[in-house]
Amino acid sequence: MTKQLRPLMIGVVGDSAAGKTTLTRGIAQILGGDATVVCLDDYHRYDRKERKELGITALSPECNYIDIMEQHVNLLRLGQPILKPVYNHSTGTLDRPEYVAPGKLVIVEGLLSLHTPALQRCFDVTIYLDPDERLRRRWKVARDTHKRGYKPEEVLAAIERRMPDSERYIWPQKKAADLIVRFWPPYGYFDENVDNRHLNVRIFQRHTLPRPDLTAVLDHSHNGRRDAISLEKDVWSGGQPVDILDIDGTISREKAAELEQVIWEQLHFSDQLHPELLGAFSEGARERHSDPLALTQLLIVYYLLTVRKHRPVEIT
Amino acid sequence: MTKQLRPLMIGVVGDSAAGKTTLTRGIAQILGGDATVVCLDDYHRYDRKERKELGITALSPECNYIDIMEQHVNLLRLGQPILKPVYNHSTGTLDRPEYVAPGKLVIVEGLLSLHTPALQRCFDVTIYLDPDERLRRRWKVARDTHKRGYKPEEVLAAIERRMPDSERYIWPQKKAADLIVRFWPPYGYFDENVDNRHLNVRIFQRHTLPRPDLTAVLDHSHNGRRDAISLEKDVWSGGQPVDILDIDGTISREKAAELEQVIWEQLHFSDQLHPELLGAFSEGARERHSDPLALTQLLIVYYLLTVRKHRPVEIT
Repeated sequence: MTKQLRPLMIGVVGDSAAGKTTLTRGIAQILGGDATVVCLDDYHRYDRKERKELGITALSPECNYIDIMEQHVNLLRLGQPILKPVYNHSTGTLDRPEYVAPGKLVIVEGLLSLHTPALQRCFDVTIYLDPDERLRRRWKVARDTHKRGYKPEEVLAAIERRMPDSERYIWPQKKAADLIVRFWPPYGYFDENVDNRHLNVRIFQRHTLPRPDLTAVLDHSHNGRRDAISLEKDVWSGGQPVDILDIDGTISREKAAELEQVIWEQLHFSDQLHPELLGAFSEGARERHSDPLALTQLLIVYYLLTVRKHRPVEIT
Repeated sequence: MTKQLRPLMIGVVGDSAAGKTTLTRGIAQILGGDATVVCLDDYHRYDRKERKELGITALSPECNYIDIMEQHVNLLRLGQPILKPVYNHSTGTLDRPEYVAPGKLVIVEGLLSLHTPALQRCFDVTIYLDPDERLRRRWKVARDTHKRGYKPEEVLAAIERRMPDSERYIWPQKKAADLIVRFWPPYGYFDENVDNRHLNVRIFQRHTLPRPDLTAVLDHSHNGRRDAISLEKDVWSGGQPVDILDIDGTISREKAAELEQVIWEQLHFSDQLHPELLGAFSEGARERHSDPLALTQLLIVYYLLTVRKHRPVEIT
């Protein structure tokens, strides 16, 4: 057998409609399609009817095969295929499983991706998506009314109903994340017309991983009155050091392109990368583009490739 | 974590209606129900409709997730649970998977249980069921007309159609078995009234495993004109030594009970065993009993517990 690198593993967690699929889409595509996206929300123990009878939400760990999640994510990490269960969001039923063989990059996303230490240990980089809550509600209403056929008041009622479980099971996973990504609307801009193309992003970088050197990027980031990207060091309560990276939502197209180029030049294997989908997101049936999203995704890729350089684990 | 023995693993292979379920039923029950039976025929890649379109039989390795079979059997061997796929024999569809945690004993049966070295290595004892072919056809017709609603001529046509794949994929697994179990009708007794309660059994024991000492059993086996149980040493072409154990189908109830007692006394942990279902088999809707079957099952259990004594692999 020839030596090969084990897959690079990203774990993404966040509440419903926190932007998991949108964030991972561009990252998945950047390796030329040789990425595998696994959604852990498929690991439900009960179908919709059974959950109703039992009176538990899909969010509850008791409603999910946590041990099988751990086993499968670990197998993918070792480069092995899995027969993944499938939850059908349209019908609420558990369908036939599907065969998944890991590509060079494996992106694991879900409500409980970092729920246990055994899961946390499987990942090279862990990301918690923590958008402004008003923004998340708006995203969830837009998606569930557009794609899943619900009424806005039904979606909002469901959010309220799930809130205790969100707080109990999802929020604590923030502690296990290397990066916390927070999209938020510019001050004073939160109204009906908030523009998803121009949201600010704040990325909290814990010192749990080697961080890429962003000096060259920061040096190019002057953008009129504000910096397009700025970095601040901080210490959280408990003494945890954290680097806070801000990307300005009002960044110009030209400045964004320039910064993407600066990051791009520092990436390993950049000749093998495919940036076509960076920054893409759906708004109803429309495909749109966000520069702050593209820069966020590119920075995460930069992170990933830095980690891989520092931890080249080989399997035979 | 407390130390525990890993599960004892039996691999049973044989063609359709070779008697896999009947043989394993009494063995599974003997450990007080703490046995897990896994059928590898659940690991189909395609449902019935897809197989028809592709023109392949369920027997073909291409029609099965062989790598996932290997992975799952190995996980069970390590005492870990699996999320097992489910093939619905009634509807021909692939249904929602089921959670299986291994008991003290894991019995893996199917058409391809010993198809690869990776599968073979997982088992403590491997068994190939090789009944007289006329007998197997009769069993298959009886089962498939009674339980699955087919006509006799349809069942026989299906056997013929599958024969090339049987020969190509099932038969070669005989080479990998520690024990080959052959039920056959007494000479001259093969007619419409062949009595399943009084079949002869021949068990070929390869020297691939420590064999239990049957001296005490053989000493008690005089049964009128013929021995109820006899043992003969032989060498197969290729120089492979083999012990051939014969159990006479005409054994009396009393002699069978006496021999069961002799074997029973030599079993380790016999106080924890539950022999109630030994020898039980279904004939249409009727539950019947066969002494040769009961003795075969008890000898296999004796084998298993001897192997365990010689190979107490501990996991922590």
